[in-house]
Amino acid sequence: MSEFTLSCPIPISDYPQVLLAHGSGGKLMHHLLEKLIVPTFASPISADRHDGATLTFNGSRLAFTTDSFVVKPLFFPGGDIGTLAVNGTVNDLAMCGARPCYLSLSFILEEGLPMETLWRVVQSIRAAAKAADVQIVTGDIKVVDRGKGDGMFINTAGIGVIEHSLTIAPRMVREGDAILINGDLGRHGMAIMAAREGLTFETTIESDCAPLAAPVLRLIEAGVEVHCLRDMTRGGMASSLVEIAKGSGLHLHIDEARLPIRDDVRAACEILGLDPLYVANEGRFVAFVPQAQAEKALEAIGEGAVQVGVVLADAKGKVTAQSGIGVSRVVDMLSGEQLPRIC
Amino acid sequence: MSEFTLSCPIPISDYPQVLLAHGSGGKLMHHLLEKLIVPTFASPISADRHDGATLTFNGSRLAFTTDSFVVKPLFFPGGDIGTLAVNGTVNDLAMCGARPCYLSLSFILEEGLPMETLWRVVQSIRAAAKAADVQIVTGDIKVVDRGKGDGMFINTAGIGVIEHSLTIAPRMVREGDAILINGDLGRHGMAIMAAREGLTFETTIESDCAPLAAPVLRLIEAGVEVHCLRDMTRGGMASSLVEIAKGSGLHLHIDEARLPIRDDVRAACEILGLDPLYVANEGRFVAFVPQAQAEKALEAIGEGAVQVGVVLADAKGKVTAQSGIGVSRVVDMLSGEQLPRIC
Repeated sequence: MSEFTLSCPIPISDYPQVLLAHGSGGKLMHHLLEKLIVPTFASPISADRHDGATLTFNGSRLAFTTDSFVVKPLFFPGGDIGTLAVNGTVNDLAMCGARPCYLSLSFILEEGLPMETLWRVVQSIRAAAKAADVQIVTGDIKVVDRGKGDGMFINTAGIGVIEHSLTIAPRMVREGDAILINGDLGRHGMAIMAAREGLTFETTIESDCAPLAAPVLRLIEAGVEVHCLRDMTRGGMASSLVEIAKGSGLHLHIDEARLPIRDDVRAACEILGLDPLYVANEGRFVAFVPQAQAEKALEAIGEGAVQVGVVLADAKGKVTAQSGIGVSRVVDMLSGEQLPRIC
Repeated sequence: MSEFTLSCPIPISDYPQVLLAHGSGGKLMHHLLEKLIVPTFASPISADRHDGATLTFNGSRLAFTTDSFVVKPLFFPGGDIGTLAVNGTVNDLAMCGARPCYLSLSFILEEGLPMETLWRVVQSIRAAAKAADVQIVTGDIKVVDRGKGDGMFINTAGIGVIEHSLTIAPRMVREGDAILINGDLGRHGMAIMAAREGLTFETTIESDCAPLAAPVLRLIEAGVEVHCLRDMTRGGMASSLVEIAKGSGLHLHIDEARLPIRDDVRAACEILGLDPLYVANEGRFVAFVPQAQAEKALEAIGEGAVQVGVVLADAKGKVTAQSGIGVSRVVDMLSGEQLPRIC
């Protein structure tokens, strides 16, 4: 009984209700996690605030992770909720340095959803699972009444095997590390935005949604001493970097001129007043590796990989970006909601 | 491209849209699974149509399962969506004969949900996890816009360890097996029904929602050769038995006079025209064990355990129930939707 009389640690006067921004990947979401969720379920396993948990069974190290997907619209250029549901969880496992093996698949369907829509999504889940070399081994279906859902929500959870002895976590980042990314930024967010708002640009911007296990495993197989990995989803590159800066207590400095952003994405961002640093990606990750291994790492990651910054020790838990004209600005976490239901 | 041109195997003329009954645990849900999901994701691991998958890593056998929870209302006598989300997944692991170890926890929140409601549910998840001796190790939060959800949906996935060499599955059921259950039937469904419809009876019917790993592990530790286990959730005892009858190809015969059903539950069922055999439970399971070990098994399961039937070989894939007046009827799967959003 006494457990229920503890009062809610999120001041009711500030946030009496859940806001869309509580799911944004930005400041409010971190506030919710830090105040309400993390202290409640704190354990040595979840202490690293990773994309997944690392479990040990009989000498095997496994990664375990979950994500729910509520993207709107269900279908968009370059993918759909099904590809996202597979790749999102596969990528969280990859960011633990694990080889993704098995996924669970759970649907929450809204009464009235066209059966053909479900069928199309199931087919793209199958194709995405095949491409990512994972098996769907267990699942669930729930149906909610009309008007109490939004067509379809999907949850996947995943299990992967960690076949190396590296510890990959924000606290492993070191002064002098190179900051690498694996390709151009901002396409997933802009693809969703364009599809949702019916915007048309000269070119179709397709989501970058893709499985990331292969480049990560190549990095590890190449013998690169990977310190930290993070996929740059909700909240974009900025939020991922701020999380890692806080987790490492170091200063991450990036050079904006080095960020690969396609012209059409940059133009769409400008029209809509969005900063590409905060736009979501679904097939992009950041890797922290020793500078001496940066060349080898870029080669292992493959086409599109580029070094965008370095880790400094002259400030604590801070991210800065040097603009094209040489001015350095502080990069903070997304503070409101840039684009709800991006994944 | 060709993958998408395959046509949907559920005849559009019959079911052009998803119905509430597709999530009922009854005939339509099985139709959806058999036609659309199972053939798409068929693998040796999922072949047993179990409550979870059994995975092998480096000699360790693990069980892996998932469930989403959409119960309405969120709070009901005897529990809430949080206790259900923990016990539902813990029980699916237990039905694989596994010791539940780790859960993931993913929320889909509706914009506008009172923060205090989230806090209360998080606290009951913590209490339920403690009671079931499992750790919540990873999670996710998504927020959908107002009117596109229903307060809160939860998904949990779970990993458990299988510490014995039994194969527990419908195909292991044998002629002559005793059919045991661990307590009275129908309380969860009637508790939800009463809470939702504002019905009041003389007594408050509380959900039977409870973790089932302890009685299952006692059965195994007692050396009982457990052939099959199934928790009797959506679709009630009847649907669980029909599934096992089909999976084993045998004839399951139960004696209705032996079914423990509380007077208030029976009365409420009569008033509402419901058959207690089809009403959902959240803390009840059926166990199939050799008749010679039935006594030992009942003792291991503990208070409330009772033998309710036997396995015969005189018919294929059939369930029959002998009524109080000696008449035997065929028990089929729930064909419509008795009570949507029961879990």
